[in-house]
Amino acid sequence: MEFPPQLRIRNATVEDVRLLRNLMLEFAEYQRMRDFVTISEETLARDGFGPNPRFRTLICESDGKPAGYAIHFDFYSSFEGQVLFLEDLYVCEEFRGQGVGKALMAEVAAVALREGYLALRWEVLDWNQPAIAVYQRLGATFQDDRRQVRLEGDALKQLAAAVG
Amino acid sequence: MEFPPQLRIRNATVEDVRLLRNLMLEFAEYQRMRDFVTISEETLARDGFGPNPRFRTLICESDGKPAGYAIHFDFYSSFEGQVLFLEDLYVCEEFRGQGVGKALMAEVAAVALREGYLALRWEVLDWNQPAIAVYQRLGATFQDDRRQVRLEGDALKQLAAAVG
Repeated sequence: MEFPPQLRIRNATVEDVRLLRNLMLEFAEYQRMRDFVTISEETLARDGFGPNPRFRTLICESDGKPAGYAIHFDFYSSFEGQVLFLEDLYVCEEFRGQGVGKALMAEVAAVALREGYLALRWEVLDWNQPAIAVYQRLGATFQDDRRQVRLEGDALKQLAAAVG
Repeated sequence: MEFPPQLRIRNATVEDVRLLRNLMLEFAEYQRMRDFVTISEETLARDGFGPNPRFRTLICESDGKPAGYAIHFDFYSSFEGQVLFLEDLYVCEEFRGQGVGKALMAEVAAVALREGYLALRWEVLDWNQPAIAVYQRLGATFQDDRRQVRLEGDALKQLAAAVG
């Protein structure tokens, strides 16, 4: 398969932090999670583009305009080994249906294979049927017996305080 | 809260790799996932205890005997920032009900707070009601609108091959 010639994927740099945060805000709107975005440009710059990057970012451009982005990082399956976790995958509204999402996913898959990861993992919101259909066509599996649990704030502090 | 005095939590070292893999096999049996354990001692040694560790391991001993373990690593919530992911938490059968799991979780929570993570995340199998009840009592939240997706093997290769 060939990608549309107007698409180009590149690694984001610290110069892209403002763009990246704006894309994230768009993504969060789409995910109905706008209120969950608390990250600042400073934190993104430090965590993504400092001396010890916590994630890697790909930006897809269409004729030089930002059309979407992907964020991924190391994950570990203790029973198996290294997995690549795709945290965000977003295509801007005006560029949907033009192969941007597929191009970004393919690039992330290529990174995974090149660097010896055994699988790619990500999450999808259960109401996002169009995305689920795409993932099914790719041959992905859904681990529907797993519930995601999260502890933060006072509950986290309370648990930590139990350390003698 | 004080932990039972016979419990001690320590960081695992490369000397613990055989023990760790054995504990993992027990854990996998308990999770009904024995067939999913493909990891070797060599891979565990490289990924957990080499120059670039992909995860950290805590071992809980009760009167000097291994009673359980926890594995955790960096995760990133792009909308928020650094999260600590608790990949495994296991208490050996003969030591259940003695505070081992709570002690391990508290230690992981303490690591999270000490090192500036904003939340702790983990997974639980949907049939594991005793664990779910414990997590609810801790004040954890369940992100039940998220489905976990995974791509590997030929499907991953096929996607990667789409990169032009």
